[in-house]
Amino acid sequence: MTDKQSMDTFVSLCKRRGFVFQSSEIYGGLGGFWDYGPLGVELKNNIKRSWWRNTVQERADVVGIETSIIMNPRVWEASGHVQTFADPMVDCKKCKHRFRTDDIKPNDKGEISCPDCSGELTDSRMFNLMFKTFIGPVADDASVAYLRPETAQGMFVNFENVLTTMRKKLPFGIAQIGRSFRNEITPGNFIFRDREFEQMEMEFFVMPGTDEEWHDRWIETRMNWWTEDLGIRKENLQLREHPEEELSHYSKRTVDIDYNFPFAGFSEVEGIANRTDFDLKAHEEAAGRTLRYFDEPSGESIVPYVIEPAMGVDRCFLTILIDSYVEEEVKDEKRTVLRLKPHLAPIKVAVLPLSRNEKLTPTAQRVHELLRPHFMTQFDDAQSIGRRYRRQDEIGTPYCVTVDFDTLDDDAVTIRDRDTMTQDRVPVSNLPDVLREKLPPV
Amino acid sequence: MTDKQSMDTFVSLCKRRGFVFQSSEIYGGLGGFWDYGPLGVELKNNIKRSWWRNTVQERADVVGIETSIIMNPRVWEASGHVQTFADPMVDCKKCKHRFRTDDIKPNDKGEISCPDCSGELTDSRMFNLMFKTFIGPVADDASVAYLRPETAQGMFVNFENVLTTMRKKLPFGIAQIGRSFRNEITPGNFIFRDREFEQMEMEFFVMPGTDEEWHDRWIETRMNWWTEDLGIRKENLQLREHPEEELSHYSKRTVDIDYNFPFAGFSEVEGIANRTDFDLKAHEEAAGRTLRYFDEPSGESIVPYVIEPAMGVDRCFLTILIDSYVEEEVKDEKRTVLRLKPHLAPIKVAVLPLSRNEKLTPTAQRVHELLRPHFMTQFDDAQSIGRRYRRQDEIGTPYCVTVDFDTLDDDAVTIRDRDTMTQDRVPVSNLPDVLREKLPPV
Repeated sequence: MTDKQSMDTFVSLCKRRGFVFQSSEIYGGLGGFWDYGPLGVELKNNIKRSWWRNTVQERADVVGIETSIIMNPRVWEASGHVQTFADPMVDCKKCKHRFRTDDIKPNDKGEISCPDCSGELTDSRMFNLMFKTFIGPVADDASVAYLRPETAQGMFVNFENVLTTMRKKLPFGIAQIGRSFRNEITPGNFIFRDREFEQMEMEFFVMPGTDEEWHDRWIETRMNWWTEDLGIRKENLQLREHPEEELSHYSKRTVDIDYNFPFAGFSEVEGIANRTDFDLKAHEEAAGRTLRYFDEPSGESIVPYVIEPAMGVDRCFLTILIDSYVEEEVKDEKRTVLRLKPHLAPIKVAVLPLSRNEKLTPTAQRVHELLRPHFMTQFDDAQSIGRRYRRQDEIGTPYCVTVDFDTLDDDAVTIRDRDTMTQDRVPVSNLPDVLREKLPPV
Repeated sequence: MTDKQSMDTFVSLCKRRGFVFQSSEIYGGLGGFWDYGPLGVELKNNIKRSWWRNTVQERADVVGIETSIIMNPRVWEASGHVQTFADPMVDCKKCKHRFRTDDIKPNDKGEISCPDCSGELTDSRMFNLMFKTFIGPVADDASVAYLRPETAQGMFVNFENVLTTMRKKLPFGIAQIGRSFRNEITPGNFIFRDREFEQMEMEFFVMPGTDEEWHDRWIETRMNWWTEDLGIRKENLQLREHPEEELSHYSKRTVDIDYNFPFAGFSEVEGIANRTDFDLKAHEEAAGRTLRYFDEPSGESIVPYVIEPAMGVDRCFLTILIDSYVEEEVKDEKRTVLRLKPHLAPIKVAVLPLSRNEKLTPTAQRVHELLRPHFMTQFDDAQSIGRRYRRQDEIGTPYCVTVDFDTLDDDAVTIRDRDTMTQDRVPVSNLPDVLREKLPPV
């Protein structure tokens, strides 16, 4: 498969099986905006739950918060986003298409011109990536507000509230999952770079001087999450150190976790940055109040350093789909399988009567009712059993429960394993317990 | 308590215990925007999970989706929001304060004037409640977009995608949880009416003619969720039929579930509307394509009717806090308890050493490590055990596990029940199972 073909395969699978649709598709879509379908929303929720469990629930030193997308605009002045969160762009004077200046390469003759029509380009100018809006009925400067381009500032401005109300001691972290918005000049590659996306970010506050050690620890912790919790293959992941000229204005050191995307090669799926005391100090100055931690042993008030693991849910979603996608030959037939870890699978158990039959269907429905309170399930009785197994394989369902004519006598069913395709016979009365054993809750 | 006092009690409890903070508080906040703290985000997530479980997982006839906040602006032209989603407002010419025209009442002398300074008011004009933004770098009409004022349109524009990819038959529903935005002229009453809020909405598509029956069924189903799943007291809830003049432009009949708020009396916490075929027909016309269901028995293509239960998570959050809040006398001391249903409680189990002690603390920490993978837990060893019980009561923690000096001998701990305050002694080895029995997963 070429890279283009492999990307097309996923976009098509995602649409056909209800994972991802174009936003507002009946109106021709909207560039950089995507919707999650019935299976997509379950996978997305499972990713978020896995991260929250690993980052918040299982650690005594991290708490979660959820802040508003629209914040006081002074937040973005203090953070530097109003001044510097911008990309250079050029327009074509002829076809009016717009490009990131970084994406413009000289043509064969060494000239700079429009990649689409070879027209003349405008001078490069800076374009701020924050979406602007207005609070209140009048669109004037006094009422300008922004859609957040990152969730991180929500943690910084709540540092003191969390410190006080949760009586935390350093080191401790504040985590958040939520939508962010960037008015990208050239969104693209499906959900790889969108204008509206969901982030999972955590600001871990530490004593200055312990920041480099904590940075290394978090790089290891996060890499383990990708391989152990999500099950992404190690050989497809690598760490990448940002060279100095690439560092953000707030960062002392940043290390990315890169995934080997078929269409783009190794590209960032998570960044782990040492943000130093940049943000807290900036807010101290702008808000005119101290944002400090009182260190009892030394009797000093300290501005903590911050280690930040930050990632996008949408890009993680794409990574998981690509990494778990397998095409294999079974008895001379092609089988497409999403080898998702069970806790990520949108549907945990499919209940399938062997055929659509007046005796099998009510029994299968009874089995379905039995399981539904415990798991995300699907009932399917359309077409041959082989086709229905393939359909479940393609969406990554770990187990299919099949109701056959023997069930009417022995009240037992078979559990088919997605990966091994082996089938075990189990009494219906034991079924919830047997499946619960195989499918621990997340 | 007066109404004002009772509201102040909640706002203060919410801040003090890490449930809700003002957005961007260090910059003086931002009217109509709120943040959820470490306990608030857990309660909010538990509400959402309970709704999703009840509405999506446990029903074979409803699937979920998650759509983008910014949609193609033609969606909002077709839905009627660009033309009609507006409130009448007036400005005071003197103090410049702004009011909803509905909120202006004649003064003692029967004159209409500014409620704040008695100044002269402008004429009433319509103000659209959608937040506007611009996609791409130039703020012109071609690039105008809106932040969605409701999640519902995400379901309507995806009707066909869901129908096809999930092979659904009528009746079936599409559910979504997500943020919406309304540029309210006068936000207020804490998180009761905010400008950014989270909705849980479900569009249930039915055959025309069966809509009235399904409407009644959904009113019952939703009322049961409030009383059974959330545990809201029946006497504090009532149904309210919208009189004809109050119906939205799309609605044939709407019934609200009202809660008796101490500061506002019975007010809407959920609306269950019969939206008829208004939205699908509007999108058919605007998008120039059919959005129909092919009914096999009759051989006809039909535009389904829609029953919509719609509610806000933030207002539900406030309802739960208010309804579960109890002040009682225990041994001549005041005890504040949030009698939350266990599945809603932010912290399920608190682990408390009897006192801060070099032998008790490591044992208590071992117990804490044992429980944390299974539940949201908190470890607390600061101040007297009585105060720590009160702190957990106040945030609604159903169980406290106390490690005392006997634990060092018998490796057993006591489980204290929030509501009865009884204590049971349990071996540490049985503790996860005993608590799992009391705290079923949601």
